[in-house]
Amino acid sequence: MIRMLYLLGKPEGMSDEQFKAECMRHDEMSRDVPGLLKYEVRLVADEPTDTHVPFFDIGRVDAIGECWFENEGAYKIYLESDVREAWFEHGKKFIGKLKPFRTEPVCVQKSGA
Amino acid sequence: MIRMLYLLGKPEGMSDEQFKAECMRHDEMSRDVPGLLKYEVRLVADEPTDTHVPFFDIGRVDAIGECWFENEGAYKIYLESDVREAWFEHGKKFIGKLKPFRTEPVCVQKSGA
Repeated sequence: MIRMLYLLGKPEGMSDEQFKAECMRHDEMSRDVPGLLKYEVRLVADEPTDTHVPFFDIGRVDAIGECWFENEGAYKIYLESDVREAWFEHGKKFIGKLKPFRTEPVCVQKSGA
Repeated sequence: MIRMLYLLGKPEGMSDEQFKAECMRHDEMSRDVPGLLKYEVRLVADEPTDTHVPFFDIGRVDAIGECWFENEGAYKIYLESDVREAWFEHGKKFIGKLKPFRTEPVCVQKSGA
């Protein structure tokens, strides 16, 4: 499984309402994207600063997205898809800044063979 | 459901191997924490910068954690727990910086009543 996580910041001057509406639209559009197993976008409701270890100040984040792909083949289909391209074009309308992460499990699950 | 997401940076000078081992230990310890429905920690495998919208540069992140709580009552039990306190003490050993987010769904799911 390939999992990508994204921090999203809205563009300067965009209202919370418009940003939320565009996030909902982006979520709806995701269902038609080939190779994309699952997409989830969540709004940031609070950014606590009272941490028990040193606080990592990165500035404002408005939403967090995550993409799941079955494997490298599915990810390639996704990257080459026109529908994915249109989905990214929609992203340009409401994502003012983007920080992507490719993540991996801490402990790789072994198959029981 | 309450969901908290965390960006983790390892302390200066800690090796990747030690950080990974401490993340695994933290994951194991999480299973005994009262009120915590689910915990997941994933390593950052890659931080792409070739974004289709402006890149959001926040500096290095080593892992991403997420906590799930059934409701506010469970979250309160968690906060008041000595086991949770010991879990946080372990966190101090391997988390050099921490950025927490409380997240919420873009679209609240309506029950089918």
